[in-house]
Amino acid sequence: MSYTFARRTDGLRSSAIRDLLKLTEVDDMLSLAGGLPAPDSFPLLDLRRAADRLLGEHGPRAVQYSATDGVVELRGWLAGEYSAALGREIAVEGQIVVTHGSQQALDLLAKVLVDPGDVVVTESPAYLGAVQAIELFQPRFEVVPGDEHGMRVDVLADRLAAGLRPRFVYVVPNFHNPSGATMSLDRRRLLAELADRFEVLIVEDDPYGAIRFSDDPLPPVASFTERAVHLSTFSKIVAPGFRVGWMIGPPEVMGWVARAKQAADLHTSTFAQLVLTDLVATPGWLDEQRARIVPIYRDRCVALADALDAGLGERISFHRPNGGMFLWTEFAELDDTTRLLSLALDRGVAFVPGNAFTIDQEPDPHARFSYATVPAERMGDAVERLVGAVDRAVRATG
Amino acid sequence: MSYTFARRTDGLRSSAIRDLLKLTEVDDMLSLAGGLPAPDSFPLLDLRRAADRLLGEHGPRAVQYSATDGVVELRGWLAGEYSAALGREIAVEGQIVVTHGSQQALDLLAKVLVDPGDVVVTESPAYLGAVQAIELFQPRFEVVPGDEHGMRVDVLADRLAAGLRPRFVYVVPNFHNPSGATMSLDRRRLLAELADRFEVLIVEDDPYGAIRFSDDPLPPVASFTERAVHLSTFSKIVAPGFRVGWMIGPPEVMGWVARAKQAADLHTSTFAQLVLTDLVATPGWLDEQRARIVPIYRDRCVALADALDAGLGERISFHRPNGGMFLWTEFAELDDTTRLLSLALDRGVAFVPGNAFTIDQEPDPHARFSYATVPAERMGDAVERLVGAVDRAVRATG
Repeated sequence: MSYTFARRTDGLRSSAIRDLLKLTEVDDMLSLAGGLPAPDSFPLLDLRRAADRLLGEHGPRAVQYSATDGVVELRGWLAGEYSAALGREIAVEGQIVVTHGSQQALDLLAKVLVDPGDVVVTESPAYLGAVQAIELFQPRFEVVPGDEHGMRVDVLADRLAAGLRPRFVYVVPNFHNPSGATMSLDRRRLLAELADRFEVLIVEDDPYGAIRFSDDPLPPVASFTERAVHLSTFSKIVAPGFRVGWMIGPPEVMGWVARAKQAADLHTSTFAQLVLTDLVATPGWLDEQRARIVPIYRDRCVALADALDAGLGERISFHRPNGGMFLWTEFAELDDTTRLLSLALDRGVAFVPGNAFTIDQEPDPHARFSYATVPAERMGDAVERLVGAVDRAVRATG
Repeated sequence: MSYTFARRTDGLRSSAIRDLLKLTEVDDMLSLAGGLPAPDSFPLLDLRRAADRLLGEHGPRAVQYSATDGVVELRGWLAGEYSAALGREIAVEGQIVVTHGSQQALDLLAKVLVDPGDVVVTESPAYLGAVQAIELFQPRFEVVPGDEHGMRVDVLADRLAAGLRPRFVYVVPNFHNPSGATMSLDRRRLLAELADRFEVLIVEDDPYGAIRFSDDPLPPVASFTERAVHLSTFSKIVAPGFRVGWMIGPPEVMGWVARAKQAADLHTSTFAQLVLTDLVATPGWLDEQRARIVPIYRDRCVALADALDAGLGERISFHRPNGGMFLWTEFAELDDTTRLLSLALDRGVAFVPGNAFTIDQEPDPHARFSYATVPAERMGDAVERLVGAVDRAVRATG
């Protein structure tokens, strides 16, 4: 058989991360590669109680078909949260669509907004899953560089002024995957201004915002403009295995998305939505959960960053993230971290090479380290193994 | 904003069924419209026990990210079931993809197989959800008529012989939605032969097969050819609110589908897969569940058919289905059942007009009645209300 899909995806990146996950299932591998949340962050006992209550009290409704845009309990909770966060009223009807994880939000948005050849703006480096979801709809990616303060919105401004008209601009403003960067307040404001001035839609993906180590949160881009679709998920703050995310956006776009969602899978799991809503809508629950899990990530982040500083010093450079799950690094002596990876795997430590997060996938000196699942007390071992691999890689290229 | 999606879906059918469901939420409406399974068929107590065990014993794994093609427990169970049902070995790896309901299977198949203008063969009448999923990818539908023995495969044979080369042929062989028809053994064999002879893929969608009132099951089309993708789901035999379905197919197609699934939503809910597998993989459980729920549907089907015979006699014609949830009818005196519908709604009974299940949506004399959720003892009332509406409709057109 011969199909265009096969032809047009021949060059499609397989997920370097998923392929790696297979390699990292060996004994005693210390994996700084995966994007999995910390298993000890999951509120299993609360979930167990909620599931039991739900299947007892709600009866058949908890496992029956439900509305395409989400169960009203969850949309009601989201409307309250986001009316406060965005500083304008978000309606329960018409502005919210619950999705099967926020990955599905990206798929649906690309499906309704992108025709072959349309321009989509991403950062570099970019979240791999977003690139994968969008590239099936054959856009032309326009890459805007990022730094430790997020996308270089000034660069975007120049390109828009020069005539660039993207279908949307995709950003991860908080604790970016992979860069760890948080977009500055000034850039958020400017991005929103550009959206309004050039009538461009912003897709603001915020899966990690709740895992914040210190400081106050910055306002979402969607609080400065209505030309934004804001995505988030329960995957990191509660648990990913239920696959419940959501998007908040302009009624027109949400109407198309709901139509595409109905055709794609009718609706997101009724049971999963109700179980998770049962937890987060309990007054105080989310604050307690945050207080319980943020230290897990913060301690691991500090342990990894300290170990890298101690073990590699000037041979590696990075900015310490203020939240999320990822630390983005650059090796001074290497120009291709995919070769470092195989040496690292031999020594029992895994990471993701930087080129997995670029559109062109050219070898580069960056690497992403996830500190989410390795205990703080093992970070020293992990970095010791890494140093051995770096030494060997430098000798091989020297 | 102006996007091609909006333009190209301007004429897209909104789901007549979903729109109707809103109307049927009024007091004392007897709804023969919806496609919801019987709430009293859901094994709530077993689900409650399984959820409790799972969140206790499996721990974090039950709510963590998992493999794109499905958790290995479910794929293992499916491999065993389908190796037996199809009479050839179905491997745990490479031939199975677990989906977010079987609606998602249709979306993913259309995404990987259909380019704008490609031909897709459907029956008439056709399952609305399939048409909606596929039409977003802009195919040309080639409609082959059906009768009480399923798709007229002889008509398809003539068109293939004349040069038709569809991307795939979509059939619902058991207790078709909406027609209630079961494809005969001869037609199944011929369809498989045509698939092999003309190198055409069959998409065999079987959500209702387990709800069989009598007789032995007929072998799936996929048991006669490997050029078939077989879809099914837990939605009708256990509960739909978890959104767990699956597809079994040729490794090449399943590889593309898995890639598209990863981009679309990473994977289906880990927890939902494990809970449902916990039930169905328990020896004897599925037989007991079937024995418990089939009589619910059978009694309601008989009650509805008897009431229609008694109340309308020769004014309505239908074939009694041997399973599933739907009874497909033709009114002798009417040529547009959408007008009948509004009269019926006024009297407190709902159904779906036949043209909702056609590609062209021209008014027609058919109607689909679902007997799934109305108790047998209320069927007399429902039909009495319907007769009043028919009388009125006939007077209005006479």
